[in-house]
Amino acid sequence: MSAPDSRRLAWAYLSTVAQGASRRLADAVAQHGPEAIAEAVRDGTQGAEVSRRTRARSHRDTAAADLEMVARLGGRLVTPDDAEWPAWHLLSFDSLAGRADSDAGPLALWVLGSRPLDELFERAVAVVGTRAASGYGEHVTSEIAGDLAVDGWTVVSGAAFGVDAAAHRAALGVGGTTVAVLACVCVDRAYPSAHTVMLRRIAEQGAVISEYPPGTTPARYRFLARNRLVAGTSSAVVVVEAGWRSGARNTASWARRLGRPVLAVPGPVTSAASQGCHRMIREGEATLVGNAREVVEAAGAIGVADDEDASWRRALDGMSGDMEVVYEAFPAVGACSVTELSESCGLDVDRVRAALPMLEMAGLVSRDDVGWSRGSGRNEVAGM
Amino acid sequence: MSAPDSRRLAWAYLSTVAQGASRRLADAVAQHGPEAIAEAVRDGTQGAEVSRRTRARSHRDTAAADLEMVARLGGRLVTPDDAEWPAWHLLSFDSLAGRADSDAGPLALWVLGSRPLDELFERAVAVVGTRAASGYGEHVTSEIAGDLAVDGWTVVSGAAFGVDAAAHRAALGVGGTTVAVLACVCVDRAYPSAHTVMLRRIAEQGAVISEYPPGTTPARYRFLARNRLVAGTSSAVVVVEAGWRSGARNTASWARRLGRPVLAVPGPVTSAASQGCHRMIREGEATLVGNAREVVEAAGAIGVADDEDASWRRALDGMSGDMEVVYEAFPAVGACSVTELSESCGLDVDRVRAALPMLEMAGLVSRDDVGWSRGSGRNEVAGM
Repeated sequence: MSAPDSRRLAWAYLSTVAQGASRRLADAVAQHGPEAIAEAVRDGTQGAEVSRRTRARSHRDTAAADLEMVARLGGRLVTPDDAEWPAWHLLSFDSLAGRADSDAGPLALWVLGSRPLDELFERAVAVVGTRAASGYGEHVTSEIAGDLAVDGWTVVSGAAFGVDAAAHRAALGVGGTTVAVLACVCVDRAYPSAHTVMLRRIAEQGAVISEYPPGTTPARYRFLARNRLVAGTSSAVVVVEAGWRSGARNTASWARRLGRPVLAVPGPVTSAASQGCHRMIREGEATLVGNAREVVEAAGAIGVADDEDASWRRALDGMSGDMEVVYEAFPAVGACSVTELSESCGLDVDRVRAALPMLEMAGLVSRDDVGWSRGSGRNEVAGM
Repeated sequence: MSAPDSRRLAWAYLSTVAQGASRRLADAVAQHGPEAIAEAVRDGTQGAEVSRRTRARSHRDTAAADLEMVARLGGRLVTPDDAEWPAWHLLSFDSLAGRADSDAGPLALWVLGSRPLDELFERAVAVVGTRAASGYGEHVTSEIAGDLAVDGWTVVSGAAFGVDAAAHRAALGVGGTTVAVLACVCVDRAYPSAHTVMLRRIAEQGAVISEYPPGTTPARYRFLARNRLVAGTSSAVVVVEAGWRSGARNTASWARRLGRPVLAVPGPVTSAASQGCHRMIREGEATLVGNAREVVEAAGAIGVADDEDASWRRALDGMSGDMEVVYEAFPAVGACSVTELSESCGLDVDRVRAALPMLEMAGLVSRDDVGWSRGSGRNEVAGM
């Protein structure tokens, strides 16, 4: 591998210097380029907000060493400069309602594995759940993840014990594609360490990705950030078994905010491991699914393979992020109210109301006296 | 027992002469009284529609024998003349959308057991499901029905094998109240015959009821009519396990048409017995429940024990059946759209729209920019 150029070194430096995702940092980089911002962060001449996020680590520039280490592990740093950057999936972070500074897509991604990210995430479904999976939960995870992988879907998960591991293993088992999103790309000292062999195979058949370079300590906030990435890179999130307070529910909650369908598998009401799923279904936070076909029905509605989607994406090109998010929130068929759209996409009612007339003018949605629906009523989307 | 008067004989005659419920017959009886209509049916001078329904049996007047037989079994015929007639529950039949002639409440009820029907059905929940229940299904049925019975709810079911029998037995087991709705009051030659002992105990601790007198052959259409009564006499229907085409789904469908909450218990996605429940939940036809508390949450919203309900019922007194049905369709909390109300109560959108302003004027519901909700917004219902 040739020596990294100064721009790549700047991306590597910036991706480690912020403690977690930062919208302000990302905006600054988008505006002024990584090199200028890296220099400003080093000199402490960035704005107060960015400084607070970067101060603690700004003096430690491990960029060259990090890039060298990931290369030695057969990996690379992927940045928005690269053609494989999964821009489409990560766009929805820009439209989050009530955006905090940490409500941002990743600045860059550390990747082990050789396949391009945009290809891996073109048709991707997250399958996640509790570490304390029951035999039933592991069985159903294997069935669903295995069937999805056979059908050509990338199975995304978090490489934890229980449901996550069963999902990766099922995809590997059928020769499918699977991506592990980690709190750090720490294959050499894998966490959980028992998963080292599995992670190596995942990198071979898909990718192991993280916002943090090899060697980063897996801290709690990085696990939460990991959940956000699992949701952000997938077209739908399936929760197989989950307690009420769990990482899987955190992933599901990110998926909802990002306008992705959240699906949950039921189980015996006598099983503690299914309580989180049941409550999500009961409270309308998730749709009940029992097999891969039902997962694909939901995920397909926003999958890139869909022709209608491709055409509306072209139609939306250059439009506001809100419009995209609102459009994504529509059910594939049937009408819904402004409130339902607001709840589904996470934007408040006023922003949904503002986006709808523009979507209507674009012929993407229509209104009748029962509510708003996809489709133009009279004119076909294809005719635009 | 004293000899039945001519009016009671007329009710008994009419309740056997129509093959199934008939709205036209019920309307005629309500207008002209049972004796006049019985005479007209006997003479064949009723309108063509009623004649078609009654012709086959009009020459056979078994009223005196039927009344004698039910008395010998310790039972009675309950008619709209009687104070115990559960008028409130059965009212919702009058508001069914797209009403066919068979979309009617029962003309009269044959009852074994000594407790008054209005008291039995004051707080009643139906617990139904497949004859081919799994061990899991029978266990969960026992838990839910037992807890409901301990909590003072009448457990209504259809006395079939599987879930129905487990529901009755659980209620009996805790000394609770349970009602079996049968295709005929045939305790002497019980169907299924193995349930004879159980049915006798049900009559002691609650009631065995039917639209048909003792000795009627249990025909298929009578089982379907039975499902309609199970739904009509309950404040909510819980389906524990069910195949996709099943009596339990038929009961659930009646409950939806009558504006009753439909609840379904999930189970392993690997279990055929849970497929009907999962599909109902998935398609929004039922709300997922896992225990009696969640059942009561749903049933309580329309239960008579509720103070708020008592006051709105007084407020609704004399108002149209549509208003009642629409009001019942509201969730206990939160807003909903006209479409949702229409789907929930089974009236079409125009009829819902017509009922809402009257409910609003009565201070029972209010509208804001997210939709319609229970409650008056400013004025309390109690203040009317």
